[in-house]
Amino acid sequence: MINPYFQQLPGSYLFSEIARRVRAFQEQHTGRPIIRLGIGDVTRPLVPVAIEAMHRAADDLSRSETFHGYGPEQGHAFLREAIVSSQYLSRGLDIEPDEVFVSDGAKSDVGNIGDLFDARTKVAICDPVYPVYVDSNVMDGRAGELLPDGRWSNITYLPCTEANGFIPDVPSRNVPAPDLIYLCFPNNPTGAMASREQLAGFVDYANRNGSIILYDAAYESFIDGDLPHSIFEIPGARTCAIEFQSFSKLAGFTGVRCGFTVIPKELIREGASLHALWNRRQTTRFNGASYIAQRAAEAVLGTQGRAQLKETIRYYQENAALIRNGLSSTGFTVFGGEHAPYIWLKTPDKLTSWEFFDLLLNKAQVVGTPGSGFGPHGEGYFRLTAFGSHESAEEAIVRIAESF
Amino acid sequence: MINPYFQQLPGSYLFSEIARRVRAFQEQHTGRPIIRLGIGDVTRPLVPVAIEAMHRAADDLSRSETFHGYGPEQGHAFLREAIVSSQYLSRGLDIEPDEVFVSDGAKSDVGNIGDLFDARTKVAICDPVYPVYVDSNVMDGRAGELLPDGRWSNITYLPCTEANGFIPDVPSRNVPAPDLIYLCFPNNPTGAMASREQLAGFVDYANRNGSIILYDAAYESFIDGDLPHSIFEIPGARTCAIEFQSFSKLAGFTGVRCGFTVIPKELIREGASLHALWNRRQTTRFNGASYIAQRAAEAVLGTQGRAQLKETIRYYQENAALIRNGLSSTGFTVFGGEHAPYIWLKTPDKLTSWEFFDLLLNKAQVVGTPGSGFGPHGEGYFRLTAFGSHESAEEAIVRIAESF
Repeated sequence: MINPYFQQLPGSYLFSEIARRVRAFQEQHTGRPIIRLGIGDVTRPLVPVAIEAMHRAADDLSRSETFHGYGPEQGHAFLREAIVSSQYLSRGLDIEPDEVFVSDGAKSDVGNIGDLFDARTKVAICDPVYPVYVDSNVMDGRAGELLPDGRWSNITYLPCTEANGFIPDVPSRNVPAPDLIYLCFPNNPTGAMASREQLAGFVDYANRNGSIILYDAAYESFIDGDLPHSIFEIPGARTCAIEFQSFSKLAGFTGVRCGFTVIPKELIREGASLHALWNRRQTTRFNGASYIAQRAAEAVLGTQGRAQLKETIRYYQENAALIRNGLSSTGFTVFGGEHAPYIWLKTPDKLTSWEFFDLLLNKAQVVGTPGSGFGPHGEGYFRLTAFGSHESAEEAIVRIAESF
Repeated sequence: MINPYFQQLPGSYLFSEIARRVRAFQEQHTGRPIIRLGIGDVTRPLVPVAIEAMHRAADDLSRSETFHGYGPEQGHAFLREAIVSSQYLSRGLDIEPDEVFVSDGAKSDVGNIGDLFDARTKVAICDPVYPVYVDSNVMDGRAGELLPDGRWSNITYLPCTEANGFIPDVPSRNVPAPDLIYLCFPNNPTGAMASREQLAGFVDYANRNGSIILYDAAYESFIDGDLPHSIFEIPGARTCAIEFQSFSKLAGFTGVRCGFTVIPKELIREGASLHALWNRRQTTRFNGASYIAQRAAEAVLGTQGRAQLKETIRYYQENAALIRNGLSSTGFTVFGGEHAPYIWLKTPDKLTSWEFFDLLLNKAQVVGTPGSGFGPHGEGYFRLTAFGSHESAEEAIVRIAESF
């Protein structure tokens, strides 16, 4: 009866342990407020076009003539077309509107995509990484046994290290080719961004070995300069890749809830069309994203909307630069923060991630996320996010500079 | 790699076949417009408190001071508390707010609950039934082989027939007790409503046999009179039942998207807390319902909101009575439509469901749903819905009376 694999999952202690230590500190200290640079949630208000679109959408629902009930599970045509036009056609990419599946967010899709695969499917995942990739595969019975070092016996880990610039190599020839390869660029937590050539290496590997790349592009709007915003910018990706995207970081929709997944019709494995399988999954187990969220998403993708979004993204990018440069000047070794809202710093004096967490909290009253929480190769690193205000980022840097 | 069970699913032809036949008819006939009483989607605008709440929520997101990003995956406390107060405490039922999991809708939850169970889990499902229960179990590998009569070899079917008033008996002693029993009251498609005693029979059976009742209460707002709105009105349900609820029919949120699932903490199977398992599932694979939908849901559950909802429900109930009585007077044998938005009629002259579909389309230009589309025991029946306008319901009855 009970899915045995759920029981294998260790508790998710990272953020609750952080909260516990912060609480304990606060109980013993009064004084200046704590600055939280740990959480990957946006803080800026939505852009005006999104708010206006939500008001109009609410009004639509107030009159029979303009009322909308169930929409297509795959998303309203107006949004699928806006996504294609704004995110793909504008980059010369040939994605059809019916290859875009709108959802309530990338986290749902990244987890639910596992429904399409059996328990014997071999999975490769970067280390360190966003925990949902691993946890959802554990639940689906693909991970094997939990090893003492925190890894799972049946998962192929792709180490992301200072030596490889936090961009993993394709899986070694010594391991059986994985069926699924999870990639996320710009990366959470390292902030690293892969080049066109590096992604081409993965696309070639996947096409040669019959793997599928599950490409999480949730942070693409932070890319600065000529780097690939979509895996479909890489020739050959249409036969080996699924892309997840989100309005959460693009437009601050973490509370509004809207994302999308692109599955090209040419993606076939074992004779099955992944596009058809996902369509069946979504029509059976999902009933469409909120009409209001879809109207707001459509609005931000228009000309005026994109211009307004740019300002919000620039605000966070300025924070990222401020934190990155401030830490650098203080003598820290810092990565990320250029094409991503995440700054990945090397802990000083070979401190563990948690030792540095405690030190930072005690000395500077700044909270971040210990890198070891993202996987064994995150040990010795620490994540700060750029999603706060300018004022808090500046103050955090001043405090850190005074403390170290 | 590919989930083999997806391939077993036959195409979902019911509504596309209906659309095809309607199109074919329209190409050959001009004349009066077709009246569609086939679709289970609402048509009335949202009540004023919902619209006002959505405007306020949109404004919240327009200012940093009131901005909301990620909410708890389980739902905002304001809504979980409003649900408990309005739907449970008001009926003397002791449900805790943290036993309520808010989601983007009951269809997602009804499908996703399957993640908590393994492939060997034995499932009992009513016949006829809402297709998602069967299809999601097929996808999870619990259904066995598709038999020539349209049933699945490993599913225990609970026939809902005229003889049992469309309320099934508990599973026979001759079959192994199922682990999961799907029940839906008021029922889709038959419109039948179970009595307290009938539900108590299921609760007793489940507690004696270690089964879990998956209770779909999506249509509870249509109940008229002293009948159980929640499975938790039945003593003993806290140790054997999970309840799915939706704002779709309660408040017309089919496009807004909000539902919830209640899992009591006493529900333990094989040593595992279903509440804890679902919490883990939702925190890993879901990121909360839309803030705007949650604020609107909170609003409709207030005193003013409930009063406004009542008017909309009454509008549909009047349609249901109109259709039910009109068909009865014309000589049809009619079920449902009293505590439900669905009218379930027996086809005249032993016509098959599809033969009656064609006849109704040709003679009256009225479209409904053939009962056989909901399962083998739906053959010989036909579903009409009360979700249209008074005018179309009246006109449909006039046309049917003229035609039969």
